[in-house]
Amino acid sequence: MSPDAGLLSPVRAGTEAEAATGDLAYLAAMLDAEVALARAQARLGIVPADAAEAIAAAAVADRFDLVDLARRARDAGNPVVPLVADLRRLAGPAGGHVHRGATSQDIVDTGAMLVAARTRRVVLARLDRALDALAGLATRYRDTPMPARTLGMHALPTTFGAKVANWLTGCLDARARLAAVPLPVQLGGPAGTLDAYGDRALDLVAAYAEETGLACPVLPWHTRRTPVADLAAALALVTGALGKIATDVWLLSQSELAEVAEAAGPGKGGSSSMPHKRNPALSTVIRAAALQVPAQVQVILAAQAAPHERPAGEWHAEWQPLRECLRLTGGAAETAVELLEGLEVFPEPMRADLDDLLSVLGDDPGVGAAAALVDRALAAYRGSRA
Amino acid sequence: MSPDAGLLSPVRAGTEAEAATGDLAYLAAMLDAEVALARAQARLGIVPADAAEAIAAAAVADRFDLVDLARRARDAGNPVVPLVADLRRLAGPAGGHVHRGATSQDIVDTGAMLVAARTRRVVLARLDRALDALAGLATRYRDTPMPARTLGMHALPTTFGAKVANWLTGCLDARARLAAVPLPVQLGGPAGTLDAYGDRALDLVAAYAEETGLACPVLPWHTRRTPVADLAAALALVTGALGKIATDVWLLSQSELAEVAEAAGPGKGGSSSMPHKRNPALSTVIRAAALQVPAQVQVILAAQAAPHERPAGEWHAEWQPLRECLRLTGGAAETAVELLEGLEVFPEPMRADLDDLLSVLGDDPGVGAAAALVDRALAAYRGSRA
Amino acid sequence: MSPDAGLLSPVRAGTEAEAATGDLAYLAAMLDAEVALARAQARLGIVPADAAEAIAAAAVADRFDLVDLARRARDAGNPVVPLVADLRRLAGPAGGHVHRGATSQDIVDTGAMLVAARTRRVVLARLDRALDALAGLATRYRDTPMPARTLGMHALPTTFGAKVANWLTGCLDARARLAAVPLPVQLGGPAGTLDAYGDRALDLVAAYAEETGLACPVLPWHTRRTPVADLAAALALVTGALGKIATDVWLLSQSELAEVAEAAGPGKGGSSSMPHKRNPALSTVIRAAALQVPAQVQVILAAQAAPHERPAGEWHAEWQPLRECLRLTGGAAETAVELLEGLEVFPEPMRADLDDLLSVLGDDPGVGAAAALVDRALAAYRGSRA
Amino acid sequence: MSPDAGLLSPVRAGTEAEAATGDLAYLAAMLDAEVALARAQARLGIVPADAAEAIAAAAVADRFDLVDLARRARDAGNPVVPLVADLRRLAGPAGGHVHRGATSQDIVDTGAMLVAARTRRVVLARLDRALDALAGLATRYRDTPMPARTLGMHALPTTFGAKVANWLTGCLDARARLAAVPLPVQLGGPAGTLDAYGDRALDLVAAYAEETGLACPVLPWHTRRTPVADLAAALALVTGALGKIATDVWLLSQSELAEVAEAAGPGKGGSSSMPHKRNPALSTVIRAAALQVPAQVQVILAAQAAPHERPAGEWHAEWQPLRECLRLTGGAAETAVELLEGLEVFPEPMRADLDDLLSVLGDDPGVGAAAALVDRALAAYRGSRA
Repeated sequence: MSPDAGLLSPVRAGTEAEAATGDLAYLAAMLDAEVALARAQARLGIVPADAAEAIAAAAVADRFDLVDLARRARDAGNPVVPLVADLRRLAGPAGGHVHRGATSQDIVDTGAMLVAARTRRVVLARLDRALDALAGLATRYRDTPMPARTLGMHALPTTFGAKVANWLTGCLDARARLAAVPLPVQLGGPAGTLDAYGDRALDLVAAYAEETGLACPVLPWHTRRTPVADLAAALALVTGALGKIATDVWLLSQSELAEVAEAAGPGKGGSSSMPHKRNPALSTVIRAAALQVPAQVQVILAAQAAPHERPAGEWHAEWQPLRECLRLTGGAAETAVELLEGLEVFPEPMRADLDDLLSVLGDDPGVGAAAALVDRALAAYRGSRA
Repeated sequence: MSPDAGLLSPVRAGTEAEAATGDLAYLAAMLDAEVALARAQARLGIVPADAAEAIAAAAVADRFDLVDLARRARDAGNPVVPLVADLRRLAGPAGGHVHRGATSQDIVDTGAMLVAARTRRVVLARLDRALDALAGLATRYRDTPMPARTLGMHALPTTFGAKVANWLTGCLDARARLAAVPLPVQLGGPAGTLDAYGDRALDLVAAYAEETGLACPVLPWHTRRTPVADLAAALALVTGALGKIATDVWLLSQSELAEVAEAAGPGKGGSSSMPHKRNPALSTVIRAAALQVPAQVQVILAAQAAPHERPAGEWHAEWQPLRECLRLTGGAAETAVELLEGLEVFPEPMRADLDDLLSVLGDDPGVGAAAALVDRALAAYRGSRA
Repeated sequence: MSPDAGLLSPVRAGTEAEAATGDLAYLAAMLDAEVALARAQARLGIVPADAAEAIAAAAVADRFDLVDLARRARDAGNPVVPLVADLRRLAGPAGGHVHRGATSQDIVDTGAMLVAARTRRVVLARLDRALDALAGLATRYRDTPMPARTLGMHALPTTFGAKVANWLTGCLDARARLAAVPLPVQLGGPAGTLDAYGDRALDLVAAYAEETGLACPVLPWHTRRTPVADLAAALALVTGALGKIATDVWLLSQSELAEVAEAAGPGKGGSSSMPHKRNPALSTVIRAAALQVPAQVQVILAAQAAPHERPAGEWHAEWQPLRECLRLTGGAAETAVELLEGLEVFPEPMRADLDDLLSVLGDDPGVGAAAALVDRALAAYRGSRA
Repeated sequence: MSPDAGLLSPVRAGTEAEAATGDLAYLAAMLDAEVALARAQARLGIVPADAAEAIAAAAVADRFDLVDLARRARDAGNPVVPLVADLRRLAGPAGGHVHRGATSQDIVDTGAMLVAARTRRVVLARLDRALDALAGLATRYRDTPMPARTLGMHALPTTFGAKVANWLTGCLDARARLAAVPLPVQLGGPAGTLDAYGDRALDLVAAYAEETGLACPVLPWHTRRTPVADLAAALALVTGALGKIATDVWLLSQSELAEVAEAAGPGKGGSSSMPHKRNPALSTVIRAAALQVPAQVQVILAAQAAPHERPAGEWHAEWQPLRECLRLTGGAAETAVELLEGLEVFPEPMRADLDDLLSVLGDDPGVGAAAALVDRALAAYRGSRA
């Protein structure tokens, strides 16, 4: 077995998003999809009710050999073929009702949407905590002056509150985008025509959506990948908003600026060689996530040009990048909560740096509408919670 | 001078989107931003009304030397520094009121949003024509049977109508996403604090937005790049939806399938060496666009992690990729209209290929809910026009 | 624990490259780096020889808790800080000699290069088998005529041998590029100055390189990421060459062409819903790899613009993408062997399709220099083995 | 006409690389390819010598309408079809000998390689000047102490010389990689079989290579895109090495560090709103290039999975990204010369910042092998010039 415990991805190691996106979570979600399908079919009388429940009883992730499934997935190019074989066997006499009229893609895609829905809940919850922390910082430092910096150089005065108001607004916008992305169930059958279900086809899709808790699509989207592409783009807006914060914290933490610092504590920001250092480690791993997610989105966006009713590669290329988008974003959001709730802000060095700027400027142009901008951002934050 | 006439980018050569996104269009849009700022300031009494009109009279793109501006942009890293210098000179006595309280980024970003708004109109108009053509194809071929293909292999029967319904839905969704993207004006001044405008700052932003016709943002977004990132992602959904169509047309056009063909005509789809060939040339260039746009989006998404109040590179890295997204998408939309309005569909070869499949299957499982799916897609199309 | 068994990445599930690139392999490689450092220091008399051997005895991957290490990596932003702490504890009295004068990056980077070197061996061995298979196909089908296809349309006659000669040359070139990439050891200490080693610094680097079997760099490359960037690009050439083959096999396998087929066998190319189908499943998963690797390379190439002596994010962003490049390429190479050794080639349908073309052309222009080109490619292949 | 004067790309506006990569340069290169083909054929007696010279006389870029060619390229999906038509007309009686036995791709690809070869000369010449400047800086500041910074925080002492030695080595390595990339001529005819040339086919390829000055490939590489992929990757190593320098200069220029500054001068680093600022404008535009090139490389790497004997999109998708790689890299190299030749270095602030670090450390660990590392890098530089 080849475990991936997150050794190369500290931003999500041990996070809730990691657990929600592991192979085991995908396996469980695909099994949930099979169960939802059987139950929806039972509701419409397509399969016997007790068969659906027998399938549900068999569809327990622990009873499946993950590594073996992954390897057998090579034969068909996807894991559902061996999964269905095992589930049929485990379901005993009900086995014949497993996966009825469905195709592998129905289960992989619905499973991915279930994973996405579950991970999104994690991300949104963390973003809410991050937003609370940001609102607190914006309120507290609403009028704390500091130099604005453009191209790294002192520009004119601003406030730390105005900087945080910008962070807050970015997170609010990204949260709204992510929350609004439709996550539909997928059901089309081998040709995308729902051929096996006769005149109950559209009712079955609706029932399947209800059983999963996912949205009901207008059409099967087996080769219309808008749902995946839109989700990936929204996740990139989240990591972008968090990456902006992390970048500023890194730069404001620099030894010569020392205007903010990540929370201290045993082991926090430590160095293997320099005990005197206190590194912006949380910012660093958030930035690492923000630098990776856009490339994963690229793969997903390009995969939209998908041949026929199922592509030979474009679809399969989406899976791992989507998972990376989900877990890097979830990890970044969890890390951002830790960063923002513990962030130390030092108004004195801000003031000293500003004084350096003012001595160059000769007079003090003031911070303009900074306070009003903070108030606007806070109003939008409060409005989003109403 | 180094003209870029689109020799390497046939998908947009000579299109309306190309004209809307050329350097001249950007120059004109930046001048429009300066004029809108002056007029908004005149409305609030910040500058004299006749100064605003004198600025407007001077701000004519033809009076500027594009090549010279581009080269002088190297000194400051952006073209607004030399642009403002020239505009001040051309505006005579009113020159002192040019660019009042603004920073370069206010003009570059507002200019880019104006270019985006204008190009979006072009894209949406073409998408509407493409949607009409798609609705016509879906209606006409609603019940035309053909083999569905997964991984390139015959799977089960479907209809050409069902395939087109999928194309139609993809374009509808992408159109809605693109149309919904907010395109805000940018105004913040050097520090993003609107420092030069006293207590009229927020009124000025609103007036500036009105003058430009763009949206009014909650805060300046100089280093909160959500508007650009969201726009780029929406454009990638459009090229994705069009790229899906082009991919299918390419594959269905293959010599052995010959189930569809791009419109014939003098010079269309010609080969420099093989007069017998009729190439899917329109599909090819649309696909080329769909393969490029996601990478441009990657740059823009990654640029969200932007330092401080103006980054030293991330912002500048957005400009050309955003332009490419706009003009490749616009070119692809224009080309898609040509492709779809001229598409020839051949039901006989579809039937023959399907018969090959049915002979393998032994019996005919039918096309399931294909007709109902077409009707759903058409209903959504009609609903979008209501 | 959150295992990643490859469920979403069938191209590498269960492959040798997967085992060579798992978290456990990285852990072992980082421990190997620590041991090599201690031994090199022992050779130079910097640490006692028995301390080096005590460290070696303690540095056994199984004695470390991978999941725990991964989570503790969050505090410092990298896994070496907790790794060194544990190794010191396990090494007992020799613990004080662990990681002497080194920084975390020395171990992470050297570990990554060891993983890369080990995985490269796997990739090259598989490529050699693929090359053998390709040479066999080129020889056998040297004169088998078929239509060349451009933009999917019949163009002029060619031979299957000429097509394979092109595949062979692509793999030969990519193999040569990958084999030539230098994989250097990393040692610089916290500042990249080798500050802890006095006048034995450069000798130590050389000894460290010898202990690891890696190349000795001119300078520490902590923020000169050419070795990683060059490796990633070479891996993308390999997946590109394999992706080209897979794309052609997919297209030639289409139901209407049926000119080649992937090997049949129990479970091979199966469908969860359509028993009549024989899918190009191996080609599909190779293509999926070829569509993902370039995006991972993008992250690595962009990370070259790395701040100062260690970046806050760019370096960390490399880790997972480099691993993906290695294991997707290794998986693709292993899958390509299976594909090529089992590929079935059907000259009759090739001939029939060609006859269709010739009937359009009216006369037979012949296959030109196809045979000579095959011979050239085979000569280059044989030359590479001499 | 839609000129692209570089308004959105200051890094290359007005540079030699821009001129070498404009549409006009591509047009001239494609005409050169046609002329070289005719002359090579004349050498082998395939066409009359005077016909070749008549073609050469006609093949003058100024006689072609670039905009019109670009638009007509839409019909065939590439510009060679209309180019050949016009060239035949202009060549009069010799027109029948134009493009003999060639396909569009032969001319587009050979033209691109000619553009690449010419632009590479520009890039290498600028890199040589940059290397000279770097060697000068490394020599001059070999022993100038400063703090090393990791994650933005003071780590341990280093020297500015050691930092420059790292920059120098990065540029040396990247220069060597770029210089070593083979740039082959392309000739294959419609099917890649050189069908029109009988037993003189391979001689013709060799003669064609000689006429162009490009390398002679083993086989036609119409769908084996290694040459383009390898070139793109090498260009990304160059922008990566330059981006590293620019990133460090930006960060060392920050108001609070002020350890280096870009050259002052009228208009240099100016701000449209803040006359007191001296921006790292050159670094900024180099960084912008370094952030864009990797995404362009991604498109090119992914395009390697190219169908059959000519893809319907993948090939066309390469053109503009390759051009961007060339001109962004060329512009970055030219800008880097300006940056490095004018760079101001301030040892006093370096010393002051270092003293801050030393006061934290308590004692001075020294700069280790920094001087020896500088000497190594300089030796490698001198070796490269021998």
